[in-house]
Amino acid sequence: MTSKPSTRPVPARAYETVLNSIEADLRAGRIKLGDQLPGERALAETHGISRASVRDAIRILDAMGVVRTSTGSGPNSGAVVISEPAIGLSAALRLHVASRQLSVEDIVESRILLETWAAESADLTTDPRRSAAVLQRAGALLGEMDAPGLDREEFHALDAQFHVLLSSLAGNAVIEAMMESLRLSIADYVSESVPGNKDWNKIATVLRAQHHGIHEAVSAGDGKRAAELLREHIQWFYAESHRI
Amino acid sequence: MTSKPSTRPVPARAYETVLNSIEADLRAGRIKLGDQLPGERALAETHGISRASVRDAIRILDAMGVVRTSTGSGPNSGAVVISEPAIGLSAALRLHVASRQLSVEDIVESRILLETWAAESADLTTDPRRSAAVLQRAGALLGEMDAPGLDREEFHALDAQFHVLLSSLAGNAVIEAMMESLRLSIADYVSESVPGNKDWNKIATVLRAQHHGIHEAVSAGDGKRAAELLREHIQWFYAESHRI
Repeated sequence: MTSKPSTRPVPARAYETVLNSIEADLRAGRIKLGDQLPGERALAETHGISRASVRDAIRILDAMGVVRTSTGSGPNSGAVVISEPAIGLSAALRLHVASRQLSVEDIVESRILLETWAAESADLTTDPRRSAAVLQRAGALLGEMDAPGLDREEFHALDAQFHVLLSSLAGNAVIEAMMESLRLSIADYVSESVPGNKDWNKIATVLRAQHHGIHEAVSAGDGKRAAELLREHIQWFYAESHRI
Repeated sequence: MTSKPSTRPVPARAYETVLNSIEADLRAGRIKLGDQLPGERALAETHGISRASVRDAIRILDAMGVVRTSTGSGPNSGAVVISEPAIGLSAALRLHVASRQLSVEDIVESRILLETWAAESADLTTDPRRSAAVLQRAGALLGEMDAPGLDREEFHALDAQFHVLLSSLAGNAVIEAMMESLRLSIADYVSESVPGNKDWNKIATVLRAQHHGIHEAVSAGDGKRAAELLREHIQWFYAESHRI
């Protein structure tokens, strides 16, 4: 596309050649979502590198949420191009949280920043039909979370969906992916810090009420109020899960 | 650490076992920054998986900015634990931008959100000596960027350092890493969109003036003004680099 030097560093390792080439193909539209990547042998021949290096590249793309590889072998076992940005971002974040170079406090503060921005930037008017559908789906998730005796892991999964859905109303896929990745990166810490089921039930009751309040504010188009409630909600849960 | 089920999915692939184990070791403090990971053979034996799967895991950790592997072999060729969150985040982001699932517009909007937040949250008073040192270093970078005939790639590198340094005053390493990764993920697009050196010189003159204004506002403790100037700066450059 250009003869200017790329700001990307010169590949130091064989697999980076494949990564750069696949990135260039994605940018140029030569590879699209849903496409199957060429096989290991073909990629190795194209780039003049070993099949082991091609496998390295594919594994990295898989961890970054850029391709999905099936575990079996055979004619349909190639890597298929997908797009799950939050997978790649959260994988990187959680490892750096684990090595204590990123703190849970900073993750929580970042999540509040992104979610309150999304609430204040929610746009219900440009595509009212889509917005109504999103709000209806979010309301349905609240109904599912209200079910008595709901398994805790299921609650967390529905909870995550609820937050991501509401954030999607701001129409910025990068913020949405970063927000989801922040949540995923500390999910284990949060889960471990609320140990007993008795404590959990108390907390869940409050979370349900908070979710309903947030949903109402967003539905009413009151982004400022929704942002305030979201901030309280996230701060409260974080403080609570560390107090017990 | 706990017998509760992890929210992390059950490993579907052999290398995920190694990733999970290394993450657990980092969390428990059994592996620390600067440590060398056990060798391939030792890790393979510990986890009962092939050395190829261990290599997969190490490559992924390398791409995520969690370890640095030397390319040679020999007794000192093992993977050393580092922490470069922005590397891992930007690697994931740039691939998803390439596949057009994340737009450059959304990246720019996200960068503005994070940088303006950092400017408004800059804290010069808690550790005044450190803040003064950061501002002095940022000022020195401006001096280097003012040098006539400076190579364009060098300008971009100094520019990036300047923005990251200022953001560090907010004291949130997650925001800092995300902000840096957003910038890195679109560096090539920006670089390609300002083709001629004549155009570039005009743009650089404006960028220099904007940087000085931002630096002054931050130094004066006027976070609100600094945030406004940053927003204008980023929006102007993005519009300009797409106009030409």
